[in-house]
Amino acid sequence: MNALGQTKRNELIGRWQEIYDLAGIAALSSWDQTTYMPPGGGPVRARQIALLERLAHERRTDSAIGRLLDDLEPYAESLPADHDDVSMVRVMRKLYERAARIPTDFAAEFAEHTANTYMVWAAARPRNDFAAVRPGLQKTLEMSRQMAEFFPGHAHIADPLIDVADEGMTVATIRPLFEELRQALAPLVATIAQRPPVENDFLYRHYPKAQQIEFGEQIIRAFGYDFKRGRQDETHHPYMTKFAHDDVRITTRIDEQDLGNALFSTMHESGHALYELGIDAAYASTPLDTGASAGVHESQSRLWENIVGRSRRFWQHYYPALRAQFPAQLADVEWDAFYHAVNRVAPSLIRTEADEVTYNLHVIIRFGLELDLLEGKLTVDELPEAWHARYVENLGLRAPDDRDGVLQDVHWYGGPIGGSFQGYTLGNIMASQFYATALASHPTIEAEIGQGRFDTLHTWLRENIYRHGSKYTAQELLARVTGKPLTIEPYLAYLRTKYSDIYGPL
Amino acid sequence: MNALGQTKRNELIGRWQEIYDLAGIAALSSWDQTTYMPPGGGPVRARQIALLERLAHERRTDSAIGRLLDDLEPYAESLPADHDDVSMVRVMRKLYERAARIPTDFAAEFAEHTANTYMVWAAARPRNDFAAVRPGLQKTLEMSRQMAEFFPGHAHIADPLIDVADEGMTVATIRPLFEELRQALAPLVATIAQRPPVENDFLYRHYPKAQQIEFGEQIIRAFGYDFKRGRQDETHHPYMTKFAHDDVRITTRIDEQDLGNALFSTMHESGHALYELGIDAAYASTPLDTGASAGVHESQSRLWENIVGRSRRFWQHYYPALRAQFPAQLADVEWDAFYHAVNRVAPSLIRTEADEVTYNLHVIIRFGLELDLLEGKLTVDELPEAWHARYVENLGLRAPDDRDGVLQDVHWYGGPIGGSFQGYTLGNIMASQFYATALASHPTIEAEIGQGRFDTLHTWLRENIYRHGSKYTAQELLARVTGKPLTIEPYLAYLRTKYSDIYGPL
Repeated sequence: MNALGQTKRNELIGRWQEIYDLAGIAALSSWDQTTYMPPGGGPVRARQIALLERLAHERRTDSAIGRLLDDLEPYAESLPADHDDVSMVRVMRKLYERAARIPTDFAAEFAEHTANTYMVWAAARPRNDFAAVRPGLQKTLEMSRQMAEFFPGHAHIADPLIDVADEGMTVATIRPLFEELRQALAPLVATIAQRPPVENDFLYRHYPKAQQIEFGEQIIRAFGYDFKRGRQDETHHPYMTKFAHDDVRITTRIDEQDLGNALFSTMHESGHALYELGIDAAYASTPLDTGASAGVHESQSRLWENIVGRSRRFWQHYYPALRAQFPAQLADVEWDAFYHAVNRVAPSLIRTEADEVTYNLHVIIRFGLELDLLEGKLTVDELPEAWHARYVENLGLRAPDDRDGVLQDVHWYGGPIGGSFQGYTLGNIMASQFYATALASHPTIEAEIGQGRFDTLHTWLRENIYRHGSKYTAQELLARVTGKPLTIEPYLAYLRTKYSDIYGPL
Repeated sequence: MNALGQTKRNELIGRWQEIYDLAGIAALSSWDQTTYMPPGGGPVRARQIALLERLAHERRTDSAIGRLLDDLEPYAESLPADHDDVSMVRVMRKLYERAARIPTDFAAEFAEHTANTYMVWAAARPRNDFAAVRPGLQKTLEMSRQMAEFFPGHAHIADPLIDVADEGMTVATIRPLFEELRQALAPLVATIAQRPPVENDFLYRHYPKAQQIEFGEQIIRAFGYDFKRGRQDETHHPYMTKFAHDDVRITTRIDEQDLGNALFSTMHESGHALYELGIDAAYASTPLDTGASAGVHESQSRLWENIVGRSRRFWQHYYPALRAQFPAQLADVEWDAFYHAVNRVAPSLIRTEADEVTYNLHVIIRFGLELDLLEGKLTVDELPEAWHARYVENLGLRAPDDRDGVLQDVHWYGGPIGGSFQGYTLGNIMASQFYATALASHPTIEAEIGQGRFDTLHTWLRENIYRHGSKYTAQELLARVTGKPLTIEPYLAYLRTKYSDIYGPL
């Protein structure tokens, strides 16, 4: 049985390789669209992306894959539960069965629609022009609902969309978790608001682009990001993307009047990239050659960005180098003032620049809006004002325009509405669980960070999380690594400890 | 018949659009490979390119296209000979019948092989490491021969390969033409060698990259290159590439110790791009949406680079701007000295940097080597030394290494051996024929160039050449525009006049 099983497994992997390569080409096409493509290229690019999606979807839903999976069941059952091939079959079946519900025409049309909508958004956001994206967004909402309806029997219409990003999670599990978190964070935010504010205006001096890029890349090189297997380019909204096991790129945006913007976004995206680059080379081009879920992915981006990159020890070590890069701008700033500044807690308008304490409120607002849109409680026309209302309610702020309101994030303009945001907060929670476990087994990690060394941490993450790719589900991985299910306590403990140090006892 | 004909024509164009889009995606994949891709991406990129070629080739050779073409014959015959659809059917039939001879596996394997060989070459050239590319080149030679053998009945083994680039041309037509040209050029080169040499050392001062790029882009913008429909990036060996009718990009390489290198290569590639961008928008995504032949393409790149970009009037106008860009480097150089310098005639080692008089000798050397390799008169092992021997024989120079010898040009390392070079010289010849015709009908063109205005020339080229795409063959186009077949007289007259002005009567 095993020889036959392995033959069929190899056939399955061979078929998957073509899907993987088409996905890599599609990712390249989108990357170029969002980094270098001249405007003239837009319409045909959307058509090309649709064609690639059509070709990939035809292959993903090929009944030959279904037959191979059926043939492979006895083989998979004969193996130890922890065998790679068991996961390979499980993951492949999930992908096959999910894809098979979506008609190819729909998949291609949705890919073309979101590629076109992205182009409209990229031009509309600087002009604060919600009217320009409204029709596209309306269609995205309708198609997102349609997508969910391909999966009948869901408890909530968002569940099938959430499942794509965070398999096994549902509105029923996320909503109470987020509410628990919101109730725990609100008093923290309120207490900190009473404390003397931290000064951070020096972050908004003029920091030339080239030096910002150089410094950020110096840091992620130290984290372990390998520029032989990746690179960084500029875009409208930063992201990580993968064209192949050994070509994992990140993007950033630079604001010369805001030092933190690119710096922390670069660290964030490098965390995603370290995860993908750390997957076992034996999984290259297979269904396991990708992270376990959006949440686990965000746990890594947020870990490198915040737990490492905004830590006291990190800046004790790196501040002299930063000051050498920007001697005039930082002449009057001491390291601890800088450390405080990059951890300043205050309600703000932009999610990607929010501090760690208020960050999840931004996510919870978007998650709620997605549910309301999908449920039909909220229309696209009402969305800009609903956005403002939630910000006033949760953060006490109203954006002066849609540019920093509903047009702020790329997600709804480059993909479905639903399932796009919960991963960030799930990731914050998991990051603290993972990090606490790493620290428990390697107490030297923090001292090493204070010396600009990240190898013990990186190795631990690679061994325990990265190398597995999507062999384990997020829940399995979390249980396996930390011995616990998803729980917010380590995250709250981390926040309380860190911010008590900055703002006094909380 | 016409309604049915149009329906079938639309079906054919619809099928072609998918092939066109796959080709555009493949071009993007190669562009990224040669500009931004980190080394790790290489192997999977080659696999992706092979997959795209496989998918495109399957579609190009689909028997449904053959049936549509058969069905369309009566329709095409019912139309006036100059009707677009007549050309559409003719071009499509040519592409279909050519593709149908090549097995899909072969097409995909060759695409993967050349993509891999390119990566090896890009790393080997700076190291002067011919041994590294030798096995790949050997396989390229074998596959090029095999490719030719798919077209039995050829008079010379190179003919089918030449036909892909320059339809209708053969070794039998090119060899005597090149020999005639060589015999006319040799005494010109010899006479000029007796004249006092032109000084050009100031071209090799330090010219910082950013200013070089800025100046070159200023010039091609003035030519009419539209950065909303294109862009320029850096690569190892400059080229123009097309991802869609409105996304036509160029690449360049910068040498900070050589002002002419990027400057004239940028003008050269912009000429290719102006051609593609000038094709009638009604042909977008159809088989006519590409230039007529390699030769006609080179006629445009060489026209903008040399006839315009190295002309007396051009530099009379542009030199002050160039000097303003590089005030220190050019402080002691007057405009006419600069004009002379960029037209200095002297045997040299690098084709892309050669002057107009010796340039064709570089091409003729390569054309001869290709024939010898294909005929089996020369082995890949003997090639490096044969290269040197031909240079000594024709130009009196021997490169100090293979880097500037056989490793110099990308062509054999990124495509077939055969058909790669003749287009450059055919283009030089045609460029003079086209330009003389343009001047005859618009005598103000030269005065306008002296004012930095290129619209009359650009409009004439667009109206007479560019907009037709591949509606006409090169031969038809030349006859239609100039009223003459291919003839070297205008080219020789152009060279004699121009270089008599610089070196004294020739």
